[in-house]
Amino acid sequence: MNYPAAATELLKTGVLPHELVFARSLQSSNLDAGAPDPQLAEADVAFGQPNPNALLDLPKLKWVHLTSAGYERYDRADLRSAFQSRGTILTNSSSVYDEPCAEHALAMMMALARRLPDAWERQRTDHAWPAAAIRANCHLLVGQTAMILGYGAIARRLIELLTPMRMKLMAIRRAPTGKEVVPTYGENEIERLLPEADHVVNLLPGGMVTGKFMNASRLALMKSSAILYNIGRGSTVDEEALLSALREKRIAGAYLDVTAKEPLPSEHPLWTTANCYITPHTAGGHQDEFERLMLHFLANLRRFNSSEPLNDRII
Amino acid sequence: MNYPAAATELLKTGVLPHELVFARSLQSSNLDAGAPDPQLAEADVAFGQPNPNALLDLPKLKWVHLTSAGYERYDRADLRSAFQSRGTILTNSSSVYDEPCAEHALAMMMALARRLPDAWERQRTDHAWPAAAIRANCHLLVGQTAMILGYGAIARRLIELLTPMRMKLMAIRRAPTGKEVVPTYGENEIERLLPEADHVVNLLPGGMVTGKFMNASRLALMKSSAILYNIGRGSTVDEEALLSALREKRIAGAYLDVTAKEPLPSEHPLWTTANCYITPHTAGGHQDEFERLMLHFLANLRRFNSSEPLNDRII
Repeated sequence: MNYPAAATELLKTGVLPHELVFARSLQSSNLDAGAPDPQLAEADVAFGQPNPNALLDLPKLKWVHLTSAGYERYDRADLRSAFQSRGTILTNSSSVYDEPCAEHALAMMMALARRLPDAWERQRTDHAWPAAAIRANCHLLVGQTAMILGYGAIARRLIELLTPMRMKLMAIRRAPTGKEVVPTYGENEIERLLPEADHVVNLLPGGMVTGKFMNASRLALMKSSAILYNIGRGSTVDEEALLSALREKRIAGAYLDVTAKEPLPSEHPLWTTANCYITPHTAGGHQDEFERLMLHFLANLRRFNSSEPLNDRII
Repeated sequence: MNYPAAATELLKTGVLPHELVFARSLQSSNLDAGAPDPQLAEADVAFGQPNPNALLDLPKLKWVHLTSAGYERYDRADLRSAFQSRGTILTNSSSVYDEPCAEHALAMMMALARRLPDAWERQRTDHAWPAAAIRANCHLLVGQTAMILGYGAIARRLIELLTPMRMKLMAIRRAPTGKEVVPTYGENEIERLLPEADHVVNLLPGGMVTGKFMNASRLALMKSSAILYNIGRGSTVDEEALLSALREKRIAGAYLDVTAKEPLPSEHPLWTTANCYITPHTAGGHQDEFERLMLHFLANLRRFNSSEPLNDRII
């Protein structure tokens, strides 16, 4: 993408003495897929969101560093085998995004617990002072139960942030190792555990395996007082089933930072469903996001130059 | 006040074998001052917000337990000396309110850091998806500096909640003891330190000493990127000076849970000033607030019965 000047300058200076070549067509977001670009054939290192099909046949390419934490675009059997057979490395920017995403998840949990949207609605409209009504609907996080879906860098940081809250924490992940810092279970135990959760915090990446992970039958197992948060990817929640659960008050609320289609179309009913709170995929953002993206890549480039293990390696 | 049935039942059962006498006129909030009530002359223990003037001359009264954390109504030289000469005890409900108030303060810090009000404004109005614009305005709490005004139970709990955030924390209190868990300074050092703070979190109680603690000249020392939070009492901030600072963009924002006059009058300019966020004194509220108030009093009653030291003792 076209990065802000300060970030681009950091990159230009930092890569020296390597030659820096910009893609011919620059995307408007660091998350958008790049167009196929013949210049890639000459590159040793690709930084950004290079077109995944183009990566299948680039024998010179030694390392791809993604400017995102998500990598479902590259999570394909053909790419994985092409990278592995050529010895190409794939890294992502997970450590740039774990802090803002974890802070964002905590912000949403706390904002809804303190009923902040109710108060601001009154500030915007009638300047009323419904202290007793709002106070009675606030709940303490201390002592409540949170189930975290996914156990990557964001989940681990969120667990740190939640630790002083003295909640009961648990996580669900594909393959628990037994070394997680909270009780962690495989997907086959989610049905048993969902009815215990006051907060279901979905941090799952996109991809085939996680598609509609929170489906109608799992939503039906949630407490009527529980809240579903999606700070992962929109594809991991069945939005039709979520709409029904919200409309029928079978769950107390949903917070969505991501939706199956982004931008969420203006006429989509999620925008206007009661107890559904939406932010436009802002969880990873922060004032110095692009500088931090560059510094993360440049730190990896120094490791690459000296043949050290790279950070945030996927393949 | 007229408590919810479950809380009243708790109280009725819990005080036995003591005799429970209700005030003749019950207030609508647990924070409102009670009317003078001749029944008080017969009581050994008063629970609620008894009329402060009436307390001056009640020789039988051994203990007053307030249903609030704030006690500025009772923070008077004449009351203090009457209580001390008669050996009357004064306790408050500080430990009921430290958790919700600390969670509320953190909720506000995080909601503004993640620009949640901006996103919800768009959800309410045009269903736009301004991801890049909002992301660029979010800031990470990690690494920022927070100055906490006051070092009571709420401050200590807030510091616990903020610990994993790896912020630079400091506190201002009347008489630092050197035993505080963060660097803590007397009021005479606030002018030197205010320019360092990204967040000024005001938890000060009301009263003569703290009146307009955050005055025009102190507001003028804050960074233009800093935010003032008031979860203490409205009287501790000069609201006219705050309005000017906000209008002239000399500070980045204010969050007020309390105002000098409550309810804040509908025509008050704070309601509509840009970057001013208001909640109607909801910081201490939570679903089981009144049950917790009763349990706190009853635990103290057991201590009173067996002559043990009472919790949250003020006098």
